Amino acid sequence: MLRVGIVGASGYTGAELMRIIWNHPGMAVSMVTANQYRGTAIESLYPSLGGFYEGEFEVYDPVEIEKRCDVIFLGLPHGESMKVVPEIFDMGKKIVDLSADFRLKDPGMYEQWYGLRHECPGFLQSAVYGLTEINRDLVVSAAIVANPGCYPTAVLLGLLPLVNGGFAEGVVVIDAKSGVSGAGRKPTLETHLPQCAESVTPYSVSGHRHLPEMTSMLERGSSENRVGIVFIPHLVPMSRGILCTMYVPVNKRLKRGDVLDLYEAEYGEELFIGLLEGGKYPATKAVLGSNRCHIGIEVSGTEDMVVVMTAIDNLVKGAAGQAVQNMNLMCGLPEETGLCGPGIFP
Amino acid sequence: MLRVGIVGASGYTGAELMRIIWNHPGMAVSMVTANQYRGTAIESLYPSLGGFYEGEFEVYDPVEIEKRCDVIFLGLPHGESMKVVPEIFDMGKKIVDLSADFRLKDPGMYEQWYGLRHECPGFLQSAVYGLTEINRDLVVSAAIVANPGCYPTAVLLGLLPLVNGGFAEGVVVIDAKSGVSGAGRKPTLETHLPQCAESVTPYSVSGHRHLPEMTSMLERGSSENRVGIVFIPHLVPMSRGILCTMYVPVNKRLKRGDVLDLYEAEYGEELFIGLLEGGKYPATKAVLGSNRCHIGIEVSGTEDMVVVMTAIDNLVKGAAGQAVQNMNLMCGLPEETGLCGPGIFP
Amino acid sequence: MLRVGIVGASGYTGAELMRIIWNHPGMAVSMVTANQYRGTAIESLYPSLGGFYEGEFEVYDPVEIEKRCDVIFLGLPHGESMKVVPEIFDMGKKIVDLSADFRLKDPGMYEQWYGLRHECPGFLQSAVYGLTEINRDLVVSAAIVANPGCYPTAVLLGLLPLVNGGFAEGVVVIDAKSGVSGAGRKPTLETHLPQCAESVTPYSVSGHRHLPEMTSMLERGSSENRVGIVFIPHLVPMSRGILCTMYVPVNKRLKRGDVLDLYEAEYGEELFIGLLEGGKYPATKAVLGSNRCHIGIEVSGTEDMVVVMTAIDNLVKGAAGQAVQNMNLMCGLPEETGLCGPGIFP
Amino acid sequence: MLRVGIVGASGYTGAELMRIIWNHPGMAVSMVTANQYRGTAIESLYPSLGGFYEGEFEVYDPVEIEKRCDVIFLGLPHGESMKVVPEIFDMGKKIVDLSADFRLKDPGMYEQWYGLRHECPGFLQSAVYGLTEINRDLVVSAAIVANPGCYPTAVLLGLLPLVNGGFAEGVVVIDAKSGVSGAGRKPTLETHLPQCAESVTPYSVSGHRHLPEMTSMLERGSSENRVGIVFIPHLVPMSRGILCTMYVPVNKRLKRGDVLDLYEAEYGEELFIGLLEGGKYPATKAVLGSNRCHIGIEVSGTEDMVVVMTAIDNLVKGAAGQAVQNMNLMCGLPEETGLCGPGIFP
Repeated sequence: MLRVGIVGASGYTGAELMRIIWNHPGMAVSMVTANQYRGTAIESLYPSLGGFYEGEFEVYDPVEIEKRCDVIFLGLPHGESMKVVPEIFDMGKKIVDLSADFRLKDPGMYEQWYGLRHECPGFLQSAVYGLTEINRDLVVSAAIVANPGCYPTAVLLGLLPLVNGGFAEGVVVIDAKSGVSGAGRKPTLETHLPQCAESVTPYSVSGHRHLPEMTSMLERGSSENRVGIVFIPHLVPMSRGILCTMYVPVNKRLKRGDVLDLYEAEYGEELFIGLLEGGKYPATKAVLGSNRCHIGIEVSGTEDMVVVMTAIDNLVKGAAGQAVQNMNLMCGLPEETGLCGPGIFP
Repeated sequence: MLRVGIVGASGYTGAELMRIIWNHPGMAVSMVTANQYRGTAIESLYPSLGGFYEGEFEVYDPVEIEKRCDVIFLGLPHGESMKVVPEIFDMGKKIVDLSADFRLKDPGMYEQWYGLRHECPGFLQSAVYGLTEINRDLVVSAAIVANPGCYPTAVLLGLLPLVNGGFAEGVVVIDAKSGVSGAGRKPTLETHLPQCAESVTPYSVSGHRHLPEMTSMLERGSSENRVGIVFIPHLVPMSRGILCTMYVPVNKRLKRGDVLDLYEAEYGEELFIGLLEGGKYPATKAVLGSNRCHIGIEVSGTEDMVVVMTAIDNLVKGAAGQAVQNMNLMCGLPEETGLCGPGIFP
Repeated sequence: MLRVGIVGASGYTGAELMRIIWNHPGMAVSMVTANQYRGTAIESLYPSLGGFYEGEFEVYDPVEIEKRCDVIFLGLPHGESMKVVPEIFDMGKKIVDLSADFRLKDPGMYEQWYGLRHECPGFLQSAVYGLTEINRDLVVSAAIVANPGCYPTAVLLGLLPLVNGGFAEGVVVIDAKSGVSGAGRKPTLETHLPQCAESVTPYSVSGHRHLPEMTSMLERGSSENRVGIVFIPHLVPMSRGILCTMYVPVNKRLKRGDVLDLYEAEYGEELFIGLLEGGKYPATKAVLGSNRCHIGIEVSGTEDMVVVMTAIDNLVKGAAGQAVQNMNLMCGLPEETGLCGPGIFP
Repeated sequence: MLRVGIVGASGYTGAELMRIIWNHPGMAVSMVTANQYRGTAIESLYPSLGGFYEGEFEVYDPVEIEKRCDVIFLGLPHGESMKVVPEIFDMGKKIVDLSADFRLKDPGMYEQWYGLRHECPGFLQSAVYGLTEINRDLVVSAAIVANPGCYPTAVLLGLLPLVNGGFAEGVVVIDAKSGVSGAGRKPTLETHLPQCAESVTPYSVSGHRHLPEMTSMLERGSSENRVGIVFIPHLVPMSRGILCTMYVPVNKRLKRGDVLDLYEAEYGEELFIGLLEGGKYPATKAVLGSNRCHIGIEVSGTEDMVVVMTAIDNLVKGAAGQAVQNMNLMCGLPEETGLCGPGIFP
């Protein structure tokens, strides 16, 4: 039984890690830290964990981490993870970092988008970008995994087969819709129920921080840089879920069957990806609470544009679920351990 | 005081017409028909109208219509409006039809999209497409106005300045999000709260009936047919509101100020259009219950794509509100009569 | 045209006052203050008011108030209203205060529940408790009206006929359900959409501040003090609306018709009260955006308990709407001016 | 591995049974029937089950049931279960029936409330009412378990300690709030999102079918019949969850600690019951997707009324979860098998 430490556990990804790991036959949470909530009962912040987790949030203490934990998940905000990764790495413990600190390879790009100088750029090259279905081989042998953002997960799982297959060409429009938990646990006017109930609205229109993470992965796939993206996220009045509708111009006429073949070749054996049949489209509710990504495909009448639609639960496949999936691989466990099971419906 | 008849009044547009007209100083509802609910108290279907409308839904009867009404709104489903328009027209009464029956000029296209042979194609040419801000001059002298669909209203108000200005070129992606009332009052599994709460999902991906209505208006603006559209609507867990995010490739580099100038030239004097300043984006909640359309504009970093975002209340500017706006013009009243006032917030 | 000043206008009641007064033929907002938002455009906080109110929030300044306003609404938090009421009163301007500062007659009780010493207890006796339907005669001649809280409005309109009629006896259970806007505009964890969506929960179980306001009015009705109340409010995942379900033990067997007669005698002529027929129950949606209170009545099989159910919009009849209703009376205008019209549905 | 048949599996309880059993180490679903959906892929009705259940709904066929199933859950509507119970019983298979058909001991009472003559009244006495925490000993040896209704589960778990302890006396007011999935999968106007979003409303005020189920259990506890109940359910705009607020007059002064002692004596060892500490109140979200019942307790200032608040997920502890809990006991498995794990939050 692996003893799991969650550093920065008071946010929604921390809570979701606790929920998932509770049912994991090979892991058990042994320590949760949250400096701000030091001494507070877990149940007090998350009544849903009452009866399951009796402990308290502790202050981060490397000595305790070293002694009481085998593997570490970091649920810290960006800027904080990079402060603790070197010392936890030195303990020889495997790390899955859910922040943005190790997702970009280029420290300059990190500084540009996050407004902070990277404190341990030496780790950027060895950290593996944990989009599991795509980077599985690298994840298996990684010491540090940078867990993808929720939007990039939904976007890249949908786009990469077309991009890597060389079919996408031109500007891909990505229209993303997210539930409010994507904005985190901190209350703001934008997430205050009376403001956001009965409302849909775009945000970060002029540039969302998840952009470079997406473009760098897409560029890898498209060596000649033939694909550009426009990405606009929207806030939708629900707690969880991301739906991405992606409009992909293609460089040859494709029928739906052609595209489906491509996706089946890529994902046919994947446990956590569901390719929907013709005429069926993903809905966030159909993946609520599950680690699955549903993908629907449609081709425009003129056969020169493919519409790829993906749905994930932003806190599971878009965060804590994929993190556990990665840790399973890093620890030699079957990838799906603790992650199976259908989501909640309705 | 104009005596208003609402034929097919049991649906949400009928109820919304009653709500709006109650506050209209120049109109009063004198008769509401709904064959299915003949004899049912209005309040019984719409408790919100209790205390305001004491009457009952009546069966449609042309003799009564002729005697008791000066002007007519048709809230019937498509296929039904065309059965009554000729006889009401013959009575010399002005008509605003909220169905799709008179929106397309070409009866063949109507048959193709609605699966019905048009029963009075002779009226198609004279019926005016009531997108008020664009067709105001025609509406003023119309006898029959075909009130635009909710999606076309939000789409065309957003796109026409760029298209008519000759800037749009290529495939415009229209990603639309709608509240559930857009699906009407009839309960279905798709609109059953446990199915659609906490869910976002695309629908009608392979072709929505509002498409020909949009393309025919856009073609008029773009004489050389340079603009194509891809349109995907989504169902969002809220009652009212439409948000359209439109990605418009343009044939010359444009800055945000250039685009704004274009829109201000077109809409600067319009009472029901709000152009948002830089960094502000439309939200459906900000127009809830009002006849306004909010428009936000952003330009991509490469300056070759303009993103236009529009928000309307699908039942007001997208249906009953615009219908009253049109009828005001047809009857020589100030266009905004009965329609002013801010929407509900929060 | 009365020039209206709204002091403390940045909260939801301030915004709602602006919405309502915009359509009021005898009032126009001439000044809105909000020290915290001094210099901020109204539209910037409330996009729904864009196109209607071009101005900015100003800092509170008695000289400007005196010069530019005829009547004053106070949307300040409790503790703040009592600081400005004396000086505005001295200007001879009529005041409707929406805070709790003048609702209780007893300064000791105020101090006990609000934890503050009252700064102008001399005004408590002359301030009229503005539950309009009950205190209309007093409101007409009042200089200062203390506008009732949202819960007390829904509770008292429902209970007073039974209590004043001498029928209620024993402990009345009041189970109240409120939308989240009742908690105000300030974001908290409790009002953060991911926390409160898909959730119902009781709060303030051991004593809500609206209790003394309710009990003092009920005691007046029940001279022998035969009625006690237990009041538990609940938070429900919606923006607006209050539903109160009140279980009233009665001292003689009553049939539904008897109770209805009692309520019709009291409210039969009231424009803003709707008594529902047998088998119909109030729903918050049916009064959304309107100044009406819907009342449903049921009698238990044993005929010794009456269940009274009331629904209001907490921001209209529970706040800004009733405030305007009171000011109309204070200024000699027809009570319903600017307040008519059905609410939004669906 | 027990082979599980679900008869009447197309409703929400059927889907929830499939979700739960998928993670159950000792059970596997071997057959699901739904005459209306014969031949329809499970995934087609429940996309959330896609990738987990590949099969189809079959027509009910006793021969197949006998051959392919070891134990049976009945998800049929009332009136249908009693038609198949005798023949499945004769096969010697254990049955948990989720309908109301076997919950009441008295066939006359069944006929009175459900309007149907009971077709196999001989089974009523032997069927065990499966409120597990209360009737555990009987469930262990039962052949047929009548699974409690969702409301009775939330009500009885909250009330029985006080009633059985002899403390409750008089009329208990039960104010219940339910998410919309409690109304089942069939779309109606009442469950149409535009009608019920942003609305709270009471229903079945003059008598809900769950009443006799509650009263018969409470009478058993209170031998002298000292407790009456008034029960009013409300519809709340969310998918899942029941919150019951129960106002219990008591026959001696009790402090919160006294009541808590009573509940701890009863439930202290229960895995699926969470007693909340002072000042904490149950929220439906805290039990979403879990088999737990949270109970909060408060005592009125006068110490003669206890307020008990309970929250459950209506589809889990209120239906499918408790059904599996019962079947575990009937089959000699640890009661909690397949049911552990925290719910979804947020």
